[in-house]
Amino acid sequence: MSTTRNTKNVPYYMLGFGAFSHLGELLEPKRAEGGPVFFYVDHYFQDKELAGKLPAAPGDKVFFVDTGSEPTVEFVDDLADAAKAMLNGGLPCCLVGIGGGATLDTAKAVGNLLTNPGKAEAYQGWELVKNPAVYKIGVPTLAGTGAEVSRTCVLTNMRRKLKLGMNSDYTVYDQLLLDPSLTRTVPRDQFFFTGMDTFMHCFESYRGGYRNIIVDTLSQTAITMCREIFLASGDMMREENLEKMTVASYIGGMAAGNVGVVHPLSAGLSIVLHLPHGKANCYALSVLKDIYPEEYDQFTEMMARQKVVLPRGICADLTDEQYDALYQGTIIHEKPLNNALGPDFRQILTKKRLIAMFKSM
Amino acid sequence: MSTTRNTKNVPYYMLGFGAFSHLGELLEPKRAEGGPVFFYVDHYFQDKELAGKLPAAPGDKVFFVDTGSEPTVEFVDDLADAAKAMLNGGLPCCLVGIGGGATLDTAKAVGNLLTNPGKAEAYQGWELVKNPAVYKIGVPTLAGTGAEVSRTCVLTNMRRKLKLGMNSDYTVYDQLLLDPSLTRTVPRDQFFFTGMDTFMHCFESYRGGYRNIIVDTLSQTAITMCREIFLASGDMMREENLEKMTVASYIGGMAAGNVGVVHPLSAGLSIVLHLPHGKANCYALSVLKDIYPEEYDQFTEMMARQKVVLPRGICADLTDEQYDALYQGTIIHEKPLNNALGPDFRQILTKKRLIAMFKSM
Repeated sequence: MSTTRNTKNVPYYMLGFGAFSHLGELLEPKRAEGGPVFFYVDHYFQDKELAGKLPAAPGDKVFFVDTGSEPTVEFVDDLADAAKAMLNGGLPCCLVGIGGGATLDTAKAVGNLLTNPGKAEAYQGWELVKNPAVYKIGVPTLAGTGAEVSRTCVLTNMRRKLKLGMNSDYTVYDQLLLDPSLTRTVPRDQFFFTGMDTFMHCFESYRGGYRNIIVDTLSQTAITMCREIFLASGDMMREENLEKMTVASYIGGMAAGNVGVVHPLSAGLSIVLHLPHGKANCYALSVLKDIYPEEYDQFTEMMARQKVVLPRGICADLTDEQYDALYQGTIIHEKPLNNALGPDFRQILTKKRLIAMFKSM
Repeated sequence: MSTTRNTKNVPYYMLGFGAFSHLGELLEPKRAEGGPVFFYVDHYFQDKELAGKLPAAPGDKVFFVDTGSEPTVEFVDDLADAAKAMLNGGLPCCLVGIGGGATLDTAKAVGNLLTNPGKAEAYQGWELVKNPAVYKIGVPTLAGTGAEVSRTCVLTNMRRKLKLGMNSDYTVYDQLLLDPSLTRTVPRDQFFFTGMDTFMHCFESYRGGYRNIIVDTLSQTAITMCREIFLASGDMMREENLEKMTVASYIGGMAAGNVGVVHPLSAGLSIVLHLPHGKANCYALSVLKDIYPEEYDQFTEMMARQKVVLPRGICADLTDEQYDALYQGTIIHEKPLNNALGPDFRQILTKKRLIAMFKSM
C-alpha cells in the first residue's frame, strides 16, 4: 500500500452529444483576458464540416495538424516557432486541440513551449516544465488514447531514438469537451484500434507491479466498459457505444499507472515501421498470448465480433538492421518491462524470442 | 442522451495510508502567499493524537467543530464571524477541513463566507456564491458522504425548515488528502452507516430518471466497491477495506446525480428526530423494500454480515405533530421524489403510507 503522488485531475469537463457546440461560450471569458485563440485541428477535418464550425474570431489562427506520423520534437518546435512569429511577444488566450491523441498531444506540447524557453527535447522527461502552459481546451475526436486527461504529450525524438513526453501537471488540459458525436465518422478499423488502446493500457496497469487502488478501480471500470462495447453489445459504433467509448477513454486515461509488455513492443513497431500507435498495440498483443492469455483471448474475440482484421506478415522479410531496431526499440523500455516481468525481463524477452514474435505477426 | 453541465473535478488529490503526513508540505506554498492557516477539526479529535500532529504554525488557529448535530446556517455564520474577528481584514491563506461530512461541509461554508458578504442563508441554493472561496484542503476521517468531492455543503435552516447547501464550483475543495488510516478508529456502526451513504446515493442516482453515462459508470463502480466491502470480503474494517471505502466515497461523490426516495425520508428523520444522516438513510431504506427491492435485500444482508443492528421502534409513539413533520420533511423534496417516482409521487407516497412506513421502523 503506497501513497499516490499528488495527482492532478482535469479541472473541468463537459460530456455529451453536442458538447462541442459549447466551445464558443467557453472561449468568451478567455478572450476577455486578451489575445487570440489558436486552434490545432487534425488535418482529417480540413475539408469537413467541423472546420467551418470552429468558433473563430478575427485574429485567431487555425493550424491543421498533419497526424500522418506521430509528433516529433522538431514538429512541435516548428509549430511553436510559427505561433511565436504570429504573436509579436504576446500569448494566445487559449489553445484548442481538436483531434485524436497526436493532435491533442501536439497542442499540449505547443502550450508548454510558448511559456517555457528552448526546444521540446529539453522537456522530454519528468517535471522539467517550469512555467504554467497557455490555457488549453481539449476536444477529442477519437476515443481511446486517454491523451485528453494525461499529464504527458508523447513526442518522438528520432535523433535520440527516444519516444517520451513532457510529463508535468502543466501539460494537463484545463478543460475538456467530450462529444461522442465527433467520433461518428471515424473509420471502423481506426475506431477499434484506438479504442483498444484503453483496453491495453488499463490491463497492462492492472497486471503490472506498480499498483494502487485508484489505478485498479478505474482500470477495471474502463476494461469492463471496453468489453461491453467490443464484445457484448453488437456494433461497437452504435450511438450508445460511441458515448461509452468516450467515457472509457477518459476514465482509462485517469487510471494510467504503468504500461507493461504491449506498449514496448508497440513502440518498437512505431519507430521502425511507422505503424500508428493503436494498430501497433494490436499487433503487439497478437503475439503476447503467453504473457497475457486472458486478454489475448478477449482481444481476438473482439476482433472477430467487430470484423476487424490485422493483415499478417508485416515483419516478414525485414533486414537484420530492422529486426535489431525492433528489438532495441522494445527492450529500451525498461521501466514497464520490469513492471510487468520483473528485473529478469531481458532473460524472459530475449532477442531471439522477440524477433520470432515480430516475425509471426 | 444529454450534455452534462460543465463539471468541475477536485483539482488535486493524494491517496494512501500516511497521506495525512504530507499536509505540512502542501501548506508551504500557501503560507508563502501570506496569512494564517485555519484548521476546522471534528471535535472527536480534540483529545486524540491527531490534534497534536497538526502542522500548525504561529498565527494559525484550530477550531474544533461540534458535529453532534449537522451544521446550521447560524453555526457557520458564527464560525465565519469568529474567523473574521481574528483576521483584522485579511484572509487565511488556507482552510483545512478534517473530519466527516459535517466538518468538511462546515469548512466549505466558512470558506465561502470569508469572501462573500452576508449570511449563509443567502447562499442556500445554486450558483449564488459570486466570489472564489478561500483555498481549502479536505481531509476526510470518515468515508461515505462524498462531501470531500461535492460542490455543496449541506446546511440546515431551522427557521425556513430547509436543508440545502451552497451549490457552487467555489464550494469544491482545492486539494484532498485521502488517508484511510484516519478511518481506523471509527466506531463500527458509524463506519457502516456512513459507508452506506455511498451505496445509497449511488443506487438512488442509478435508479432515477436523471441519468448520464458518467453518473451511471461511476455509480456502478462505487456500488460494486461497497458490495465488495460489506458483503464479500469479511470484516468491513480490514485495512484494504478502509482504503477501498475511502476510494468508493471519492468516486461515489463524483457520481452524484440526483438522489431518490431514501434521502427525502432520511431528511425527514434528521429534521424531526435529529438522527445523523448515515443512520437515517439506513432507517429509510429499511422501509423501502417495495421501491428498491434488490438494494433492500443487499442492505439487510450487509447488516447481517457486519453485525450491525438498527434498533426498532424509533418512530413509535410520536405525537401527531411529529408524524406530520416527518411527512412534510419528506415530501418537500420534490425533485428527487419526482426523479425516482415520477410526477405522481404524492399519490404513490401518500401521507398515510409514509406515516405507516415511519411507524414500522
